[in-house]
Amino acid sequence: MKKLLFIYIILIGLFVVYVYHYQTNETASNDWEDHELQGSVEETYVMITFQTGIDYWKRALKGFEDAAEVLNVSVEYRGATQYDINEEIMALEQVIARNPAGIAISTMDPEAMNPTINKAVEAGIPVVMFDANAPDSKAYAFIGTDNFEAGATAAHKMAELLDEKGEVGIITHPYQLNHQERTDGFHATIEKKYPEMTVVEIKDGRGDQLISKEVSEELLSEYPNLKGIFASEANGGVGVGKAVIDQNKAGQLHIISFDTDKGTLDLIKEGVISATMAQGTREMGYWSLQFLFHLQHNVVSDVNGETTLPPYVDTGIKIVTEENVDDYYAIE
Amino acid sequence: MKKLLFIYIILIGLFVVYVYHYQTNETASNDWEDHELQGSVEETYVMITFQTGIDYWKRALKGFEDAAEVLNVSVEYRGATQYDINEEIMALEQVIARNPAGIAISTMDPEAMNPTINKAVEAGIPVVMFDANAPDSKAYAFIGTDNFEAGATAAHKMAELLDEKGEVGIITHPYQLNHQERTDGFHATIEKKYPEMTVVEIKDGRGDQLISKEVSEELLSEYPNLKGIFASEANGGVGVGKAVIDQNKAGQLHIISFDTDKGTLDLIKEGVISATMAQGTREMGYWSLQFLFHLQHNVVSDVNGETTLPPYVDTGIKIVTEENVDDYYAIE
Repeated sequence: MKKLLFIYIILIGLFVVYVYHYQTNETASNDWEDHELQGSVEETYVMITFQTGIDYWKRALKGFEDAAEVLNVSVEYRGATQYDINEEIMALEQVIARNPAGIAISTMDPEAMNPTINKAVEAGIPVVMFDANAPDSKAYAFIGTDNFEAGATAAHKMAELLDEKGEVGIITHPYQLNHQERTDGFHATIEKKYPEMTVVEIKDGRGDQLISKEVSEELLSEYPNLKGIFASEANGGVGVGKAVIDQNKAGQLHIISFDTDKGTLDLIKEGVISATMAQGTREMGYWSLQFLFHLQHNVVSDVNGETTLPPYVDTGIKIVTEENVDDYYAIE
Repeated sequence: MKKLLFIYIILIGLFVVYVYHYQTNETASNDWEDHELQGSVEETYVMITFQTGIDYWKRALKGFEDAAEVLNVSVEYRGATQYDINEEIMALEQVIARNPAGIAISTMDPEAMNPTINKAVEAGIPVVMFDANAPDSKAYAFIGTDNFEAGATAAHKMAELLDEKGEVGIITHPYQLNHQERTDGFHATIEKKYPEMTVVEIKDGRGDQLISKEVSEELLSEYPNLKGIFASEANGGVGVGKAVIDQNKAGQLHIISFDTDKGTLDLIKEGVISATMAQGTREMGYWSLQFLFHLQHNVVSDVNGETTLPPYVDTGIKIVTEENVDDYYAIE
């Protein structure tokens, strides 16, 4: 009987602990609900790009997945395998049909894609653009690089490498807005801030490695005192690098390129390219998902109850040189 | 004895439920930890401004508090009660001494404040700037209005009000960068996009209501065909409004102003000011705290383990007219 009483007391004790625990847990659950930054795994957010196979998107997708993990939601990656706008539009149409919790899009052709982007927004699906914007669409925000600023950063780095003196050239892709902006930012910064430096010529490399190599060779023979070349995109940078190697001028002039594909990183390791501009692609993915989540859950509502988001986030630029190049080979 | 057995069984049952519940709760707790967007109420984030008493900051502080609620952390509001940089620096010094979880600062004088801002960063405290930046400081990010874009938005609205035709003037504050940018954005947009519109003159209202009224009166008599005036800040806008009322011209020309203080909103209600530009002050506060939290908890780390944040967030502009003016009186 005493033994029974003992067990009895223990069980009652446990019951009290249970009730107490249950209540604490209730409070926790309430906090959890109050705490609006918590979704469910059934909630699926989709990232859509073109040329889905290229390395460039890996870090953006990683950021998108990182945000999904902290917000406890699911993600999918869709898009056009080729550089084909119709394929990208079709991918978006299919995603809209499944009514996801949100869509982050990088478009290769805003004009062509605007109607489908607007269709998604009109269907009540949160949409943000990242990396390549569709400024005339109804998407709620754009998260990407300020290309003028990125060009200015490249100019400051070039000035540092050249002790603020000497002739420099630019290889760019003049019919694409982001390249124009990078070129303008570089050019304007050299002109305004570095009186002993001159931009001698801007050549069209058409975003192609071979053509960029050819025009770089012209540049090198036309301007024997050239001290530096800025390439506004990765193919151009590799082309400039190959021209410099062919003419045995590696190390004699400074090349600054853009993005962090393997070809560019290899040339940095070899000492041919001095620096490259790494875009905040991971941040693009991370804050895209954060913004979509905030729209889906109406976390930040305005005076009239509408969700309001900052329309533009500049994800910035980091300078990659021999010193930190190894960090960029590994896509964690 | 049967009764005792019954109680026994119930208690064992409850014990089983308890153990089960405890395990579920364990899982939840783990999720909670994984789910990194959850702070503790002991974690205090501080907002610092100048002229702490003015209405302007209320919405920024509301956004800061909203973010604190969803992230489960605490906030404080400090700063200079006057328009006094020494008082603001002292407030920041006092906050640094208490080693808070993060600081969001709007500075009235970046040059004077940079050393103290850098001291906070060097002490390992996350710091972001909002509304009024200190671009040469070591703060991690700036969250505020793109003033050039805001001026452009005002220009588009003016063009809409005037059917894209006619003479317009500008009253601004030419020695303050944000006002220069607003003026440039307005001016450039009218020139580029609206060939039948002309900016006839830009006058200095010195951010003062009376001076702005005087220069507006000059503008009105010098240009009898004037169809619109853009004021780049709130005191100027009220000054323009009073000039127009005095000359019995209310309703005959369109005034576009900036910000949403009571004086401006009242003149919109009276039909004297046609529109004003509302800054995303609440978004500034909300994303400032989000960014500080991300820095404090190292939520988004880069290839080298460093926390990376977008360096700039444009919180955008909304147009306030008679239709939605009531929403802006109430600071929720």
